[in-house]
Amino acid sequence: MLNINDQRLLNDLDELARIGSTGDGGVSRPALSPADVEGRAWFKRQIEAAGLEFHQDGTGNLSGVLRCADPQAKTLILGSHLDSVPNGGRFDGALGVLSALEVVRTLKEAGTELPFHVEALSFTDEEGSVLGLMGSQAMAGLLTADDLARPRGGLDALEAGMARIDVDENSILNAQRDPQTLAGYIEVHIEQGTRLEEAGIDIGVVTAMVGIRSFNVQFLGEAAHAGTMPMLKRRDALWGGSDYILRAKRHVMDDYTPGVVNFGQINAKPGAFNIVPAQVDLALEFRHGTDEEMDAMQRDLLAMAATVAQEHGLSVRTSPLDTLQPAPMDATMMAAIETAADALGLSHTRLLSFAGHDAQIMSRITPSVLYFVPSVKGISHNPAEYTAPEDCINGANVMLHAVLALASG
Amino acid sequence: MLNINDQRLLNDLDELARIGSTGDGGVSRPALSPADVEGRAWFKRQIEAAGLEFHQDGTGNLSGVLRCADPQAKTLILGSHLDSVPNGGRFDGALGVLSALEVVRTLKEAGTELPFHVEALSFTDEEGSVLGLMGSQAMAGLLTADDLARPRGGLDALEAGMARIDVDENSILNAQRDPQTLAGYIEVHIEQGTRLEEAGIDIGVVTAMVGIRSFNVQFLGEAAHAGTMPMLKRRDALWGGSDYILRAKRHVMDDYTPGVVNFGQINAKPGAFNIVPAQVDLALEFRHGTDEEMDAMQRDLLAMAATVAQEHGLSVRTSPLDTLQPAPMDATMMAAIETAADALGLSHTRLLSFAGHDAQIMSRITPSVLYFVPSVKGISHNPAEYTAPEDCINGANVMLHAVLALASG
Repeated sequence: MLNINDQRLLNDLDELARIGSTGDGGVSRPALSPADVEGRAWFKRQIEAAGLEFHQDGTGNLSGVLRCADPQAKTLILGSHLDSVPNGGRFDGALGVLSALEVVRTLKEAGTELPFHVEALSFTDEEGSVLGLMGSQAMAGLLTADDLARPRGGLDALEAGMARIDVDENSILNAQRDPQTLAGYIEVHIEQGTRLEEAGIDIGVVTAMVGIRSFNVQFLGEAAHAGTMPMLKRRDALWGGSDYILRAKRHVMDDYTPGVVNFGQINAKPGAFNIVPAQVDLALEFRHGTDEEMDAMQRDLLAMAATVAQEHGLSVRTSPLDTLQPAPMDATMMAAIETAADALGLSHTRLLSFAGHDAQIMSRITPSVLYFVPSVKGISHNPAEYTAPEDCINGANVMLHAVLALASG
Repeated sequence: MLNINDQRLLNDLDELARIGSTGDGGVSRPALSPADVEGRAWFKRQIEAAGLEFHQDGTGNLSGVLRCADPQAKTLILGSHLDSVPNGGRFDGALGVLSALEVVRTLKEAGTELPFHVEALSFTDEEGSVLGLMGSQAMAGLLTADDLARPRGGLDALEAGMARIDVDENSILNAQRDPQTLAGYIEVHIEQGTRLEEAGIDIGVVTAMVGIRSFNVQFLGEAAHAGTMPMLKRRDALWGGSDYILRAKRHVMDDYTPGVVNFGQINAKPGAFNIVPAQVDLALEFRHGTDEEMDAMQRDLLAMAATVAQEHGLSVRTSPLDTLQPAPMDATMMAAIETAADALGLSHTRLLSFAGHDAQIMSRITPSVLYFVPSVKGISHNPAEYTAPEDCINGANVMLHAVLALASG
């Protein structure tokens, strides 16, 4: 049975972790920083050393390609990102890129005949030091000149960064890849949570990246003197707001787990010790895996706000803010991951991803799948982030056998 | 049976309401403003026309004195204030001063022999345009040079105002009255609430001006990603804060009515839509009529904060802010009001005052009582403030007969 070279993968992880090392096990390689540029150069050397075709596209995505016999064949992309958050961990993103590289090397060494080209790819700026999901968005044709004019990291940082990796605004806006040329996308990532660790399961197959919707929920009562107004007569907006928070929490936990709800901001007006609050503004955000579940949660939560307002003698206004649609993973690709795990004798489960990854962008242009390996204690974006060597190896072997399953399937 | 002159009282209320009239039934006579100065001059003319001794003390309190036969006798003060909030009502304060004047005039005309001097008095700046409870605090010897250096209305307003009524810092700081010379203090005021109106009761005898204590209550949990952290594992400080608000409300309503509790401010940190709140700060304020009740409420509410924190996996910090002690009214003076109401066939009840009045200051130097007459719909500090003529007359007659009861008692 074909397997990756365990030691080579672990050596790569160690070598890469020295670039931008924080000295305590973590790495600081924000996208387009000097440390990231050094990491990119290191990755290029590994690709060339493995005898793969090296490519840098217009948005700075780097890849090593293994060509199959048919020049007209489509390309299966295996990828993730080499950049990190400042003071981040050594596995987030890096594990996916190095697993992809190791899988392609193994396939090349084995001389396996494949019906598609295979490309081990690192996306530019997944973490958002400059723009966020920049490489995958450019590849999917989702970036606009407007996006580039207002990067979250500031225009100066973007321009200095583009110069460092030899791309420019024009090349980024033209980095789109034709979906007809793609066979699919596979990404392995550390879970950044504790579900796998707690369940003692090796592989978590993501069914979807969750959708996110946010609302402002405003309860309106009546300001009153906090002494002279008897409590029975008060129309205290904060009583309604508090009740709503607790009931929404209970309802989502009871009826929508693993979906989640959060109230991250609250404000009471007029906002004095001795005045009964007339107005409370709540920041409501909820997440789930499918449009149907998101619609149902929204219906329930908005109806509940009206019920709570009525019970407390208040009125309520809800206004929608942002919407991010769920990104479902491809059923065939998910099955390939599960087939591979079964072949390797690894346990697996299906779960949602509550954080964003390049796979959510890639799923818009090609059949995609994301899967997780365990993170110790779920710690991530932190130098203490850790995934055991065995789990790293498992992740890469699953990728290898998923490629083989897709090739034979 | 001796009675006040109804029409004279009502005429005085009408005449005074023309000074600083807002044109829609209300008055604007902020303390030491030109309108207030005009009102003060009008009051002086009424005192002199009634053949009473006119006095202005060092803090600008104005009074008309009816002397009894014994020059060594103590003085019973009947009073309230002529100043109003900007755009206030015509009864708040004015009713107490004009009732006092009418009672003293009636006693003088009847030639009633009394064991004490009786003084109808208007305190300077009860409402706090410049300093707040200025006249009664100066009389009680509670004002300091520091207070006068930092008046809430600003130093310029205080200095301009002092010049208008011919007082200065030195005279204010020496306006203290020797408690040994006082026989007591009686004040009638509109309720500024709806308890009497709703119960259909004529007179509300205040047992105490409530104490007020305030605390900051801080719940501490753990910030977390609002997507990836499962709800069961969250230590959401806002869940604790919300639960505490609702439980404190219920407990105070169940066990401490008519005591009240309010949460007038709330803040969640770090304060982002997608971050589970790590910290919630609540502004807690509660009020009740006695030190014992205040101590018990404090004990219960702080213990409840600890319980709620524990149940939600949080910690809690409580820090005391301000304390205002309850000002109990004098039992003998309260009984005199009730005796008078009974003699007049008026219904009465005992209640707490949840707002401040000059009586709370006077109670620190002499046996004092405050009583209420109904306010229509409880509206106050508003031109729509209204108390029916009959209730105004009842209030003054109760004062007259309370004086007689004390004289004979």
